[in-house]
Amino acid sequence: MPEVSANAEPIPITIPRRLDPEDAQLALQKLQVLFKREEVVEALADKAEDDERANLLDGALQRQLENEIREVIQGLHPADIAFILESLPVEPRQLVWRLVGPDQAADVLLEVDDWARESLIESMDRQDLVAATGTMDADEIADLVPDLPPDVVAEVQKGLTEEERAQLIAAMGYPEGSVGAIMDFDMVRVREDVSLEVVLRYLRRLHELPDHTDQIFVVDRQDRLQGVLPLTTLLVSEPDSDVSEVMNTDYLTLGPLDEDTEAASGFERYDLVSAPVIDDQGRLIGRVTIDEVVDVIQEDSQEQALSRAGLQEEDIFAPVISALRNRAPWLLVNLCTASTASFIASRFEDTVSHIVILAFLMSIVAGIGGNSGNQTMTMIIRALAVGRVTGSNIWQLIKRELSVTFMVGACGSIVTGAFAWVISGSAAIAAVMMAAMIGNMLIGAALGVLIPLLRDRFGKDPAVGSSVLLTFATDSLGFFIFLGLATVFLL
Amino acid sequence: MPEVSANAEPIPITIPRRLDPEDAQLALQKLQVLFKREEVVEALADKAEDDERANLLDGALQRQLENEIREVIQGLHPADIAFILESLPVEPRQLVWRLVGPDQAADVLLEVDDWARESLIESMDRQDLVAATGTMDADEIADLVPDLPPDVVAEVQKGLTEEERAQLIAAMGYPEGSVGAIMDFDMVRVREDVSLEVVLRYLRRLHELPDHTDQIFVVDRQDRLQGVLPLTTLLVSEPDSDVSEVMNTDYLTLGPLDEDTEAASGFERYDLVSAPVIDDQGRLIGRVTIDEVVDVIQEDSQEQALSRAGLQEEDIFAPVISALRNRAPWLLVNLCTASTASFIASRFEDTVSHIVILAFLMSIVAGIGGNSGNQTMTMIIRALAVGRVTGSNIWQLIKRELSVTFMVGACGSIVTGAFAWVISGSAAIAAVMMAAMIGNMLIGAALGVLIPLLRDRFGKDPAVGSSVLLTFATDSLGFFIFLGLATVFLL
Repeated sequence: MPEVSANAEPIPITIPRRLDPEDAQLALQKLQVLFKREEVVEALADKAEDDERANLLDGALQRQLENEIREVIQGLHPADIAFILESLPVEPRQLVWRLVGPDQAADVLLEVDDWARESLIESMDRQDLVAATGTMDADEIADLVPDLPPDVVAEVQKGLTEEERAQLIAAMGYPEGSVGAIMDFDMVRVREDVSLEVVLRYLRRLHELPDHTDQIFVVDRQDRLQGVLPLTTLLVSEPDSDVSEVMNTDYLTLGPLDEDTEAASGFERYDLVSAPVIDDQGRLIGRVTIDEVVDVIQEDSQEQALSRAGLQEEDIFAPVISALRNRAPWLLVNLCTASTASFIASRFEDTVSHIVILAFLMSIVAGIGGNSGNQTMTMIIRALAVGRVTGSNIWQLIKRELSVTFMVGACGSIVTGAFAWVISGSAAIAAVMMAAMIGNMLIGAALGVLIPLLRDRFGKDPAVGSSVLLTFATDSLGFFIFLGLATVFLL
Repeated sequence: MPEVSANAEPIPITIPRRLDPEDAQLALQKLQVLFKREEVVEALADKAEDDERANLLDGALQRQLENEIREVIQGLHPADIAFILESLPVEPRQLVWRLVGPDQAADVLLEVDDWARESLIESMDRQDLVAATGTMDADEIADLVPDLPPDVVAEVQKGLTEEERAQLIAAMGYPEGSVGAIMDFDMVRVREDVSLEVVLRYLRRLHELPDHTDQIFVVDRQDRLQGVLPLTTLLVSEPDSDVSEVMNTDYLTLGPLDEDTEAASGFERYDLVSAPVIDDQGRLIGRVTIDEVVDVIQEDSQEQALSRAGLQEEDIFAPVISALRNRAPWLLVNLCTASTASFIASRFEDTVSHIVILAFLMSIVAGIGGNSGNQTMTMIIRALAVGRVTGSNIWQLIKRELSVTFMVGACGSIVTGAFAWVISGSAAIAAVMMAAMIGNMLIGAALGVLIPLLRDRFGKDPAVGSSVLLTFATDSLGFFIFLGLATVFLL
């Protein structure tokens, strides 16, 4: 674990396997037990008629509890403490947070998810905040700035060097989701005309290398990137050879305004640990490391999963009202689309009143169209995400989806046809049912391809909202086709 | 990029930014244009009455095409070639594959997704396969074995050293999804009683270090892991200090039978680049590197996205029939659940025949229950995934979800109530509608918590199948509650 390793003093042997998510799990459960017990005891204490004694009791219990908590969290890695804080309701979270040592506070603040960080910062007083933030790098401070009180930011800025202040301002300038927003400034630079011997001596003088340093950057006098020197190459090459002889000129470079997801796909494809970020003059301005990239990948997939249900990241312990804001909008949209669909269906009231059984079959037609369209859409969104869809193979994809859907529909319609026949006792109704179902499934497939493609073409995230649109179409049209056919052929 | 960097010879300067996914995109589009043109030309050639000349023409065109393809793919990174192969239909894919140089064949085979690998291996003759596989490490061969013809495996085994053969057999023994299945054997070992000077000389003699070597492993005479020595520490520490003084004893260790997703969460949380794998005697048997972990994370999130639509990874260019096998089962299940739901509803035929408008309102009640339950379920699955749900906070979660849902339902029911009143003109129907909707949403919320929890408790993936179950329940019960209430209060 580089944070620890990077300093050269011998590290005292601690509990073996201290880096273990299971330890964090265990600690979390211990804490939950503590807080449970606390509730019970307090309930009792409140019952004690003598307030004087009750308060004394409370104070004692409080101190005991705090000691027990310290015992549980001490020796845990900051990332584990962050996990525990995220997993506790707000009150216990803030209590535990107050007991986290000042030496770890900064690391923990950087590790916790944004939604949890707020509640932590709220519960800190100004000096502690300044102290914690003061130890951070410019790029780390930049990540926190949105959550920090302005006066704290001002205070911290005073403590920065000229260079750091410039970096902070630069880092704050890059938009969310850009490479600039995830890059750091901890780079080791060397010139190409020096020998590896010199480089080795230079590194030794640094006493510590930045986390995730797998390569050092070779720049010219104008700070333009000339190549990269992997540490592995440095270690196996002859010390008297020059940097230029062994450096690697075959590397991925990023621009500060590239999308972070692009950077991620580059890291994935080429199995990188770090990559240089250069400006349009080719000057080295930062680097991106794999740990940031992994976070990007994770957040990306989580956002997708949540957005499919119309949600954003939510503190599962936050007050109900905030959850309301998170969930209501999407549900209301669905409500409106569903109402529109059923309004369309209600235009066929006359038909349904003659053949009531249609009322119970129409939802099947609508549903299956949505489900099969959803399968198609998932496939297309995947293909778009990996960049497999290009202008020249779109028609191929559409043709394929339609034929697949038709075949699936044909098989499925036999099942539904049989079902319709059984409960309606009418072959005609069964026939209409089968035709409507296949028709609606084809519509679902066509939209399943087109909706994400169009959203993508207009620079919108293909996933978000697509499913709502799709279900709306397959519901409304499902009702319309089925009841329409019924009106024409069965009345 | 370690593959290239690890060897110490100077690398000839090539096209700058050669590592760039966009280059791959570009190459793919060029190839697609080539193949389009090819189709047209061949169509013309077939028209040429004189077969003799047509064949000659064909041959010439074929050679020209192949040269053009070589031009496009030459100099591309193996991972880029893999992407291109994955993005082409089977025939062009195999044509391009035949033109990939033997020096890159092995790397490309290892980079392509499993579903594409088959079609590549099919199109290779025995010798080429043996040649390509022969250059691989034991753990890499193990990944390929399932796709390789047995005689090729036998042939390749002959070429391995005793140690490699043992590693191959070990690697093949670990189940899919275990740490053993993603670990490699390329570890650098040192003893703790030697000086860093000695270590540095030792490394130099190796001439090349394995990819993603960010730390070397400190073992005793029984090969038991004593600590890790990060390269960064090695580089900044005084050469005359002993390994034991500077080594890091604070690291994550994995067991070969741990789940790969566990390993992934460890890498994520502690920002690791590599981690040692030890057996139960504490002996070092392998290591896991971040590139494998990133693949695990990606596949995991992709599988989740696909499984939500009842799909598996699918070659979007594979024949329609294979897609059928992928999609039909889930749709049939949905069809059956939908039919059951509408059968339940049809028990109220009498009610609906009296108040036809109910037929158009019931689908709204069913739908909103599913949607809101789906939101709850997404939240719970997230919380389960990160290990935030523990026995002691389940009830808290259920209470919270129910109250959130109730509040959302209360707001939403006003909208639907109004809608129902407008199209039915009856306040009574509106009231029944509102009650049924809130009731069904609460059922959805309760199931949205319970279904994933139970599946998780019984060791099943909480995501897969949960949504089908949920929709089934909210549809059936939605119909039942709404029409039931209507029967009781409106007739």
